[in-house]
Amino acid sequence: MKIALAQLNYHIGNFEANTQKIIQTAQSAASKGAELVVFAELAISGYPPRDFLEFDDFISRCEHELEIIASACHDIPLIVGSPVRNPSPKGKRLYNAAVFLHKGEKKYFKKGLLPNYDVFDEYRYFEPAKSFDILQFKGQKIALTVCEDLWNVSDNPLYTINPMEELMRHEPDLMINIAASPFDYHQAVKRREVLRQNVKRYGLPLIYVNHVGAQTELLFDGGSLAFAQNGFVAEALPFFEESVQLVDSERLHQNQIQADQQQVPSKMSLIHDALVMGIRNYFQKLGFKKAILGLSGGIDSAVTMVLAARALGSENVFALLMPSQYSSDHSVNDALELAKNLGSPYQTTPIASIYQSYENELKSTFNGLPFDVTEENIQARIRGVLLMAMSNKFGYILLNTSNKSEAAVGYGTLYGDMNGGLSVLGDVYKTEVFALARFINKDGEVIPENTITKPPSAELRPDQKDSDSLPDYEILDQLLFYYIEERKGPDQLMAMGFEAGIVSRVLKMVNTNEYKRYQTPPILRVSPKAFGMGRRMPIVAKYLS
Amino acid sequence: MKIALAQLNYHIGNFEANTQKIIQTAQSAASKGAELVVFAELAISGYPPRDFLEFDDFISRCEHELEIIASACHDIPLIVGSPVRNPSPKGKRLYNAAVFLHKGEKKYFKKGLLPNYDVFDEYRYFEPAKSFDILQFKGQKIALTVCEDLWNVSDNPLYTINPMEELMRHEPDLMINIAASPFDYHQAVKRREVLRQNVKRYGLPLIYVNHVGAQTELLFDGGSLAFAQNGFVAEALPFFEESVQLVDSERLHQNQIQADQQQVPSKMSLIHDALVMGIRNYFQKLGFKKAILGLSGGIDSAVTMVLAARALGSENVFALLMPSQYSSDHSVNDALELAKNLGSPYQTTPIASIYQSYENELKSTFNGLPFDVTEENIQARIRGVLLMAMSNKFGYILLNTSNKSEAAVGYGTLYGDMNGGLSVLGDVYKTEVFALARFINKDGEVIPENTITKPPSAELRPDQKDSDSLPDYEILDQLLFYYIEERKGPDQLMAMGFEAGIVSRVLKMVNTNEYKRYQTPPILRVSPKAFGMGRRMPIVAKYLS
Repeated sequence: MKIALAQLNYHIGNFEANTQKIIQTAQSAASKGAELVVFAELAISGYPPRDFLEFDDFISRCEHELEIIASACHDIPLIVGSPVRNPSPKGKRLYNAAVFLHKGEKKYFKKGLLPNYDVFDEYRYFEPAKSFDILQFKGQKIALTVCEDLWNVSDNPLYTINPMEELMRHEPDLMINIAASPFDYHQAVKRREVLRQNVKRYGLPLIYVNHVGAQTELLFDGGSLAFAQNGFVAEALPFFEESVQLVDSERLHQNQIQADQQQVPSKMSLIHDALVMGIRNYFQKLGFKKAILGLSGGIDSAVTMVLAARALGSENVFALLMPSQYSSDHSVNDALELAKNLGSPYQTTPIASIYQSYENELKSTFNGLPFDVTEENIQARIRGVLLMAMSNKFGYILLNTSNKSEAAVGYGTLYGDMNGGLSVLGDVYKTEVFALARFINKDGEVIPENTITKPPSAELRPDQKDSDSLPDYEILDQLLFYYIEERKGPDQLMAMGFEAGIVSRVLKMVNTNEYKRYQTPPILRVSPKAFGMGRRMPIVAKYLS
Repeated sequence: MKIALAQLNYHIGNFEANTQKIIQTAQSAASKGAELVVFAELAISGYPPRDFLEFDDFISRCEHELEIIASACHDIPLIVGSPVRNPSPKGKRLYNAAVFLHKGEKKYFKKGLLPNYDVFDEYRYFEPAKSFDILQFKGQKIALTVCEDLWNVSDNPLYTINPMEELMRHEPDLMINIAASPFDYHQAVKRREVLRQNVKRYGLPLIYVNHVGAQTELLFDGGSLAFAQNGFVAEALPFFEESVQLVDSERLHQNQIQADQQQVPSKMSLIHDALVMGIRNYFQKLGFKKAILGLSGGIDSAVTMVLAARALGSENVFALLMPSQYSSDHSVNDALELAKNLGSPYQTTPIASIYQSYENELKSTFNGLPFDVTEENIQARIRGVLLMAMSNKFGYILLNTSNKSEAAVGYGTLYGDMNGGLSVLGDVYKTEVFALARFINKDGEVIPENTITKPPSAELRPDQKDSDSLPDYEILDQLLFYYIEERKGPDQLMAMGFEAGIVSRVLKMVNTNEYKRYQTPPILRVSPKAFGMGRRMPIVAKYLS
């Protein structure tokens, strides 16, 4: 049987666009000989629809779109994910289902394992299925499941049922799994291994269709797969782009394939492509074309600018240079050099005279008190106001350039450099930003070498260096990783060799700056534990602080 | 048996303080004759500990504190809520338990119904108990449950088990429920009726102990109760304050009580007290004393200032007046009058010259383009910078003064008037702000009458009125309520009589401004559906927008 894997980029709640894309893809695939077209989990609504699922009107729209697709693709057998109502008065009102549509027939295959950790809230909305049916189609018995349903291999302690075990009683010929599996830099490898374990355990070929594209902070890398029953990847769809491919399921039963047909790219390559897609989709889906950012000559804004230029086109990224009296000459030169390298529009607007006007107005109130973080923040905030003024006047979206190390320890000014519609690097530690800069420059200098090699500085007072206030980034980032990604406690961190004073100082900085992170823009998620929807912390707490 | 109901204000993760408070309360109650002291759900950690629960170190601390309490209160029987480890390798790693401690004995009574809606994420962390035991103590059989366990009356469709039904097999004499039931303006009445239904259904007295105090946005009103078995409230602890009361359980079995011993205050009284507590606890728990806010002469900042003065003391609330060329004389006068009425410190810092410096710097870039929202926002953002400068220099926390109507439709300036550490009125619709102002003035004019009666205006351009951009608040707030709190769709709203044009315009404003709300401060939650942790929306979506 020829099965089309439709790896598409949906837009949450944009029913017309999603439905049109599904119909056109189905028709095009059918015209190329597809006998079954498979779309991703919750493709109808986009993923994650979050609390829109609580609106009855939203669910009615999903039902309506299913009818439109069923009618437009009457003769094309297809599988598509949608929220569907729970007909029983008991349990939550919805199921997360794979819907099989063909010639007026409509069959529901409901998700049994509902992820409710990290960025996932599925148990908030959906009733878990407790029984599982096989899809009989063209003489084949298909074990059709939804995403997490295949993740109870190696006895995942989170779940007491295993949908595939239930389905194996029907002696299926083939597994199909429709997914919404978001990207992180480990996920493509991890996902592939989990799927392979299913193939080996059940001795069945597997068709796996994932989302691709960005939904604000959540990035979907695609990478849909067809596994031969021997456990090798027989067909692999690309990462970070839409793609439709036809797979002959017969071929998956044979043993001709003796190696994976696709390798997963390197971590930096994945992060680079994920961020570019994240920026591009954010703008596309909001209907914006042009970005603005403050270009300081430092590495964070430089990397952000290159990624934005690759996502939107150099001509659509406007660099605003806003030197103050504390800006070094090399900073301005490095920033100018990058803008010229990229061929992007730029402008220099010094902040000295505006800063002076604040000083004058506040002079009598501050009454001779010494220069402190107040004056540093005023500079950062003037830049924030200027960038937002440009954004308002000309329709740019402001890109935030903060990195994850800064976000973690609160080394940034709220309503200043923490402004923006989207944080590009907020899930990338400073040491990873350097690696990303090297990755960008691998085929020739794009980012000026001096931007990469000079010591990081906020340049908000004379001769300031990040290292005045923070441990070396090599140590800081390691420590942050073990605390944030790995949830190690202070005793464990000290046992790993981190110095007690640094541990308590850094953990305190992380925890007391929750209030700042609460007000930051959404952060493109590339790690297994990003700030934002996947990390939910109390603000007014006193733990390790 | 004499049972002490300990309604206390905990601090999340502040183990030393929580433990000390628990021990002192237990000892003091015992000295007054208490034979059993009952504390609230997750009292050890504070509620909600959120993702701190994923840190093994945090759980070890909870276990450690339980040991300290068990040792310090060796002879005092007590019940206290804590996260406890799941000893089984299957299921999530934790239970949410009521722990009975007495003479070295430690018994766990685990929560079976885990709320996972609105502000609740308990299924993210906890394994639900599937079997339920009785607490045998002093010849009494006590059905001891945790919060939501009593909320499966009238066949709540969310749950398939009912812990009390299971416990009734043991023929208990008394129910005790420890809770963390957050406030909204309906909750005290609703909670009382749900508890009463349990009392009537099972024919047993009920002791109910709730949290009191604010945990950032979540407000706990206390209002702990003892029900006689005939269904009347025999003993009621106050709202919004710590209280420990002794109840003789014998008395609850008798029928002397023939009416509820406490009435629930009016909606405006509840909201007023909740917000005052919310402000006070936010500052106390962060270790701050002084607030600053921008006082415009309008009603939102006036009401915020009065609430802050009542929470922190008038002398600790600093009012900054920042008139521009568009500010009317009456605004400045109304603001001054309020500051003087309260006896609070204030200062006037005009923004004209700073505004002029931005205009000069941007003149060549803006190149004669007309005045638009850009210039309005610059004014709001200058005020934001000045308030934050005062906050940085003198250690004030900035209070945000936006109301829920504005937050809903995006009528506010990000990084301007949307700044602040805490949003006081972000869950109070504009029409409710007026009602609150009237409530504040009920015993004499505190807020100048002119502030209440003049038409609302942002005063960012000549003769601006809110009604230029928004429907009348009477209509707008109704519509917002039905959309936000009740999740009605456009068809339902039109069927209710709202005009089609207004419905589509307002719903679009709400949905396209999700990006602004994402970056706003935490909002004190007083309604059943507040912006913030209880309402989770995609940003880059296209539904009703």
